[in-house]
Amino acid sequence: MIQSIDRAIRVLTALQGTRRMSLSELAARLDLAPSTMHGIVRSLVEHGMVVQERGSSRYQLGPAVLRLGNVYLDTLELRSRAVPWAEDLARRTGLAVRTGVLLIDDVVIIHHEPRPDGSRQMPEVGIVIPVHASALGKAMLAFTPEDEKRVLTSGELRSMTGETITSPEPLRDQLDQIRASGVATEQDEAVIGEGSLASPVFDSYGEAVGAIGVVVPSGDLERPEIADLVRDTARAVSRELGAATWPPRPPGP
Amino acid sequence: MIQSIDRAIRVLTALQGTRRMSLSELAARLDLAPSTMHGIVRSLVEHGMVVQERGSSRYQLGPAVLRLGNVYLDTLELRSRAVPWAEDLARRTGLAVRTGVLLIDDVVIIHHEPRPDGSRQMPEVGIVIPVHASALGKAMLAFTPEDEKRVLTSGELRSMTGETITSPEPLRDQLDQIRASGVATEQDEAVIGEGSLASPVFDSYGEAVGAIGVVVPSGDLERPEIADLVRDTARAVSRELGAATWPPRPPGP
Repeated sequence: MIQSIDRAIRVLTALQGTRRMSLSELAARLDLAPSTMHGIVRSLVEHGMVVQERGSSRYQLGPAVLRLGNVYLDTLELRSRAVPWAEDLARRTGLAVRTGVLLIDDVVIIHHEPRPDGSRQMPEVGIVIPVHASALGKAMLAFTPEDEKRVLTSGELRSMTGETITSPEPLRDQLDQIRASGVATEQDEAVIGEGSLASPVFDSYGEAVGAIGVVVPSGDLERPEIADLVRDTARAVSRELGAATWPPRPPGP
Repeated sequence: MIQSIDRAIRVLTALQGTRRMSLSELAARLDLAPSTMHGIVRSLVEHGMVVQERGSSRYQLGPAVLRLGNVYLDTLELRSRAVPWAEDLARRTGLAVRTGVLLIDDVVIIHHEPRPDGSRQMPEVGIVIPVHASALGKAMLAFTPEDEKRVLTSGELRSMTGETITSPEPLRDQLDQIRASGVATEQDEAVIGEGSLASPVFDSYGEAVGAIGVVVPSGDLERPEIADLVRDTARAVSRELGAATWPPRPPGP
């Protein structure tokens, strides 16, 4: 790990908050001298990763990060394979469909197919949801033993709502059930009034490289045909990625 | 400029190409020892900025860049102000509307309102167009003297199509005209069969912080009411950003 690169990325991460930050605030956040922070920020500004807010001493993310994010999406095979299946799943269920990947302890949405009711809906690509509060996240965790272990032993499952699972034991039980059924659910655990249901997507190495699922209004989690459709969709996308079987591992540890 | 941060960003930039790259390819591209490159890439992988392709020694961009790009968009005042006006402009003209900002020698699209004909259109947010081949870019260049000077003296205006302006003189002439009219145009200069028309957006400091414009089918550049609508839209967004006048500077050098 190269220290200055680590620091530069921590600056970008700090600027992901809602507030723009000054050099001295960034220096305090990373516990560095302002002169050290000045060099880091100048290097990021040079490449358009960060820009200074006009008429203030504060910094914000710059357009170079948008370009990187767009290239990431364009080159992601999971995404290009998932899109037609996501459209199909949205049509069949009448629900919004999300595809996500793991980013450390979060899920990042890489594709969002809106509810096919013609209403204007907030785009969700690029948003993150804590892995333990998300059906997409739990679907992946159940089939990625290293990540599961890290999350279950981290001791800090952040509460998003009163319904978020914040202790390891019930999460571990859910992951066992997900391994058996191939489908993860959550209700009000990330956002009050919203539930979701998701299944893992595997690649040709049998690795859970993502998950796909639907956003459901309260109560609809009980409709069994939805779980079947989500499972079928995840299986179809996995097949396109070269997965031989779905799910690839026997249930249980 | 901190050398290792500069190198890390150049790695990310190299991975913006269509091909995934191995450590040795990246090392050759940046003219560094493979061991040096290994440390850089490991630091980027640690934060999810880069991921190793499963079953290969090649690397690609990671989900952390997508998250950064999304936060950038969400916190950009130009974007939130421009969106309702872009929708209105699309409705009035029947054309797709793009809003962009400068990123060194390119324009990055920060908002794309599709043609309001209900057809499915490729999303364009995050794509880049060389500044000299884009109406958005020329609109901004004409009002940012430092950037204009850099582009006009760079000696290398990249050709995108047979119509791209590749020498400084005709570009300089066009920028003079844009300063007078407030509207930039291009026809087939970035993409064959596509033209565009754009006007600069100013903030409360009188700085050209972006541009907004329409994509037009061949021939429609001549419809004078389109130029008027684009100009009015740029003026309205500028006013919302606190610009006192539009355009803020007298035409000419």
